[in-house]
Amino acid sequence: MSFIEERETMRDAPIGVFDSGVGGLTVAREIMRQIPKERIIYFGDTARVPYGNKSKETVTKFSRQIVRFLQGQHVKAIVVACNTASAYALDEIEKEIDIPIIGVVKPGAKVAAESTGNGKIGVIGTEGTIGSRIYDTYIKEINPDITVIGKACPLFVPLVEEGLWQDPVTDEIAARYLSGLIDSGIDTLILGCTHYPMIRSTVGKIMGEKVTLVNPAYETARELKELLRTENLLSEEKQGLGSNCYRFYVSDMADKFQTFANSILKYGILSAKKINIEEY
Amino acid sequence: MSFIEERETMRDAPIGVFDSGVGGLTVAREIMRQIPKERIIYFGDTARVPYGNKSKETVTKFSRQIVRFLQGQHVKAIVVACNTASAYALDEIEKEIDIPIIGVVKPGAKVAAESTGNGKIGVIGTEGTIGSRIYDTYIKEINPDITVIGKACPLFVPLVEEGLWQDPVTDEIAARYLSGLIDSGIDTLILGCTHYPMIRSTVGKIMGEKVTLVNPAYETARELKELLRTENLLSEEKQGLGSNCYRFYVSDMADKFQTFANSILKYGILSAKKINIEEY
Repeated sequence: MSFIEERETMRDAPIGVFDSGVGGLTVAREIMRQIPKERIIYFGDTARVPYGNKSKETVTKFSRQIVRFLQGQHVKAIVVACNTASAYALDEIEKEIDIPIIGVVKPGAKVAAESTGNGKIGVIGTEGTIGSRIYDTYIKEINPDITVIGKACPLFVPLVEEGLWQDPVTDEIAARYLSGLIDSGIDTLILGCTHYPMIRSTVGKIMGEKVTLVNPAYETARELKELLRTENLLSEEKQGLGSNCYRFYVSDMADKFQTFANSILKYGILSAKKINIEEY
Repeated sequence: MSFIEERETMRDAPIGVFDSGVGGLTVAREIMRQIPKERIIYFGDTARVPYGNKSKETVTKFSRQIVRFLQGQHVKAIVVACNTASAYALDEIEKEIDIPIIGVVKPGAKVAAESTGNGKIGVIGTEGTIGSRIYDTYIKEINPDITVIGKACPLFVPLVEEGLWQDPVTDEIAARYLSGLIDSGIDTLILGCTHYPMIRSTVGKIMGEKVTLVNPAYETARELKELLRTENLLSEEKQGLGSNCYRFYVSDMADKFQTFANSILKYGILSAKKINIEEY
């Protein structure tokens, strides 16, 4: 196959998107909106979720297994739709594979650095993401004068998964987590976990109108589109319909995933398939 | 080796105790109190915690791997110190191994059935434990006239792990979860998850003095002692000291486990060792 023919075949290939569970669906949704002609293969690691309280070594091992699975599905590019995996595993995995791979952290960091007026940015996320100080690193590369203040919010994911998106308990927990960030005078706050867009209105209410909330999902889809264009990998026509277009795999609880996914995506998921990820 | 010699060697062997993470330490603590001469090998599956929102198939697979690891450590008996794993995996694994194995569910069910006066028992636990209706099954075997009312409390584990053992938010969430149980007029409530003894006082305050709280950890240690006596497997003298007596293994985050364990156990853990459980 000539180089040009190979590119043409690759253009039709799907994009691989993965997360520790359902949170990354907020990223998949943005990709569906912004580049609707693309096929997507989504993997949610529901047997080992969450990643946010696990070590760099373990999260990297899990991510590597998923990347191997996605490569077996002949994806043309991979999106790490999980902040913790982006923080811990992306740098290493990037060196090991020969297709483009992007995470959610860098795009979020970039737009936050562009958005801040007073040079004070807050980041909320899991213990892993905040502990890694990955947002600080990327933001400081863009502008070393910016101050970045991180705050881990371990209860946000369980509260979202329990469905308490708008609830006095979530208000109270959010008020506690965010009080230090309010006092520090940030004007920009990164929602550094893919679950957090679901409680965006609670966070926005507490932070006040003057603080810009950055949702890395949106920025990631934009950066992915740019990347595919640069690499000449954008799909030129809509690739199939329904289950031909979007495929979902999980490591456990396929039915529950399907229900949750259908509440997030406007698009009806025909089925989510369970695979044994430990074999990869 | 003769049968008698073999029994003597086995008496000196350690007891294997496992859980999805740190919760099972409340069971290990009871075993240390009630049969202090015994050695314990504890495994916490911190790389794949929690189990409560995962499927029977996945929890059974994980439990089987851990049992294989513990058998490699030549334990004389195994305690499944996790309600979800006891509910989902115990029946199958029991048939596959030739050493005694007990879970936390049956002992908890037994004492609850003995304790109730009005024949109405409540059970709180993870989605997995409650969905399995395992407590109902065991209690009905003892007395088919007893009514068992289950309630899943998915936020209790994250609240305990966040350290909010006594907190208005935990009070509020507990009041919501427990209101139906209060209305149903139960006189006995099983704390059907190993994390829950840590918020025993919150649950007790809401349920009121007339409701007896059953902690399966205590009953499990008692049943274990009985079982070892019957099988002639009780250790006759204290087996070593410190790290010779109690050994701790995890699949991730050994340092964090150690800190948490030291806050629960009076006994100083010398070290927790990380192993790759997926290899078993």
